[in-house]
Amino acid sequence: MINKEHLSNDLFAVRQRSPLVHNITNYVAMNFSANALLAVGASPVMAHAVEEMEEMTAIADALVINIGTLDSQWVEGMLKAGNAMRRRGGVIVLDPVGAGASSFRTETARRVIETCRPDIIRGNASEIMALTNSGVRSRGVDSTEAPNDALKAAKALARLSNSVVTVSGPTDYITDGERVETVANGSPMMTRVTAMGCTASSMTGVFASVNKNVFEAAVHAMAVMGVAGELAAEKSVGPGSMFANFIDELYLLTPDILLKTLRQ
Amino acid sequence: MINKEHLSNDLFAVRQRSPLVHNITNYVAMNFSANALLAVGASPVMAHAVEEMEEMTAIADALVINIGTLDSQWVEGMLKAGNAMRRRGGVIVLDPVGAGASSFRTETARRVIETCRPDIIRGNASEIMALTNSGVRSRGVDSTEAPNDALKAAKALARLSNSVVTVSGPTDYITDGERVETVANGSPMMTRVTAMGCTASSMTGVFASVNKNVFEAAVHAMAVMGVAGELAAEKSVGPGSMFANFIDELYLLTPDILLKTLRQ
Amino acid sequence: MINKEHLSNDLFAVRQRSPLVHNITNYVAMNFSANALLAVGASPVMAHAVEEMEEMTAIADALVINIGTLDSQWVEGMLKAGNAMRRRGGVIVLDPVGAGASSFRTETARRVIETCRPDIIRGNASEIMALTNSGVRSRGVDSTEAPNDALKAAKALARLSNSVVTVSGPTDYITDGERVETVANGSPMMTRVTAMGCTASSMTGVFASVNKNVFEAAVHAMAVMGVAGELAAEKSVGPGSMFANFIDELYLLTPDILLKTLRQ
Repeated sequence: MINKEHLSNDLFAVRQRSPLVHNITNYVAMNFSANALLAVGASPVMAHAVEEMEEMTAIADALVINIGTLDSQWVEGMLKAGNAMRRRGGVIVLDPVGAGASSFRTETARRVIETCRPDIIRGNASEIMALTNSGVRSRGVDSTEAPNDALKAAKALARLSNSVVTVSGPTDYITDGERVETVANGSPMMTRVTAMGCTASSMTGVFASVNKNVFEAAVHAMAVMGVAGELAAEKSVGPGSMFANFIDELYLLTPDILLKTLRQ
Repeated sequence: MINKEHLSNDLFAVRQRSPLVHNITNYVAMNFSANALLAVGASPVMAHAVEEMEEMTAIADALVINIGTLDSQWVEGMLKAGNAMRRRGGVIVLDPVGAGASSFRTETARRVIETCRPDIIRGNASEIMALTNSGVRSRGVDSTEAPNDALKAAKALARLSNSVVTVSGPTDYITDGERVETVANGSPMMTRVTAMGCTASSMTGVFASVNKNVFEAAVHAMAVMGVAGELAAEKSVGPGSMFANFIDELYLLTPDILLKTLRQ
Repeated sequence: MINKEHLSNDLFAVRQRSPLVHNITNYVAMNFSANALLAVGASPVMAHAVEEMEEMTAIADALVINIGTLDSQWVEGMLKAGNAMRRRGGVIVLDPVGAGASSFRTETARRVIETCRPDIIRGNASEIMALTNSGVRSRGVDSTEAPNDALKAAKALARLSNSVVTVSGPTDYITDGERVETVANGSPMMTRVTAMGCTASSMTGVFASVNKNVFEAAVHAMAVMGVAGELAAEKSVGPGSMFANFIDELYLLTPDILLKTLRQ
């Protein structure tokens, strides 16, 4: 069960503190994720140059590493930022976009896990399964696996990497290897808007900036994404209007609306 | 004349099969094109790293190469992906964005044509003319030439490159060097939304994934773009609302709406 | 006082001449800025490759250099384009995004100023202060300083760099080191849409393309941004709808609406 008081407090804290989230993310997601973070009350920074990773990480409350449009130069920046953040003891979120679709992605995700030791890993079912079972192949960046099938893999990955693992899907699963929490809010329309998953990872960075309990932070981020997505979908005729409505709902979200809409 | 049954069948096939389209495209277009492809029912992947081109191409139904925000590193990835796709016998679409605006672009487009042998080349009038006549200079990425003036160049290019050539404009022309088909749908408002042309190229990749007849596929993609654009413009006060409405119309498009709106 | 006839004439000239603005800008801003420029009537080009900088600059009416998602390769393209534009005597706008947040950014901004001698520098208060006082640290890309506190720094920077300096904020300040003009239009909602500042810089390039008086051009760009932002905010429930409405308002803007809404 989600602790409603904690969830409510975290949303309030985001609005009050406006945490600075450093995103090394993909070209497709950058604009949408930055807008989502501004809308919810956070302060996003997008930066990837090796030359500035240490300084950027030093002022950030959280680091989100997303391998969505990877190349070798960016990997260098990711590892440098991750190492700097790990030394500082700050929070790191990894989004292994497309793990399982190419060995370059699967290996980079594993390398970030081993080197930077992320606190939270968020992916779809295929991506999470690909990280523990090299036989799983993603179909591009969309999942071919059901989230509940991925739960076993998620638990194993969480234990192995000593992290919290979030598996996104119609129901989201969040596990630290022992506990499992679920978030049932959302809408199928969310899968028709690109970068929605990437934005969930950036949102996880936001909530982990205001809540030291990373398991709870990961759950709260998915609750906020699911509730805003569900409310936006009710007002949308298609993914074009969904795009704008989702950002608006994040902005309009209050603890009251959040708790009232949360399905448990 | 567009065969209405084939057009209708192709839209149905896109919805049913959700083809995976690998786009190596520009930074400006990535988000919009990905959203358009998701809205119409396809599954877009954006990836450019040399390290993963062969694996990404191996799972894709079509490859779209767009030179919109080019640099030398990306060219390497484009050629590697194009060669891999050519060996596999898969379909390749080229969008020579800004050919004629710089010799780097004109030469890269020609190099992709010679090396990867795209099945379909889609551009505006200036771009297509620049590929056959080195005297034509584009003004940035917007066309300075009328599409019908480009038709002769398009036919020559189609014969020379053994491909289908689409020239976008108020009326779109599609030619294989002999046959010419036209699409008259659309709206001037489409020229005020950036990446609309790039998205037409990605859409061409979608339809070429479900129809082996690449000439027909190229025509069907422009029909879908034109109809969605026309319906969206009717509901839009400016290019901001057009942006969202266009994505919505792609999502809402049915064979019935498509055939009813098609002007021939 | 803003000369209303000049402002009105400049908007008319943008619509009539459709100036070509070459933007070397960041990944987050590219799509939004391109759409804003198309909506206001300009013709945007986004290009960064060293190989084509001279040819792109040669056909452009203005060059906008934005260091928002910097890396060392891009710096090379920026300097090459800036030098080519300087030799041609064309207009250059610099947006020192995140100056003060990392020494890489502060130094790159200074290097562009020294090497390319921009005509106009536009930033938020923290960024402008960081360029004259190495003790100022930005918090990411958002300002931690009030614009009026930055006015002294802006005047010093304008004199030192022989340029016009624009400081964005609730009230915008534009100075050439002696004169100061203010623009009071706008809306707090503008700070919740990413790339709004970057777009103000690109808009400055648009107006400097049609008005040789760069001080006036800088003022007019901020007036257009502020008026469109204010009108859009009145119709928006959040930053998602703001995003689309802002582009629509730029498109719908007439000299009449502009002058009627301008607050002085």
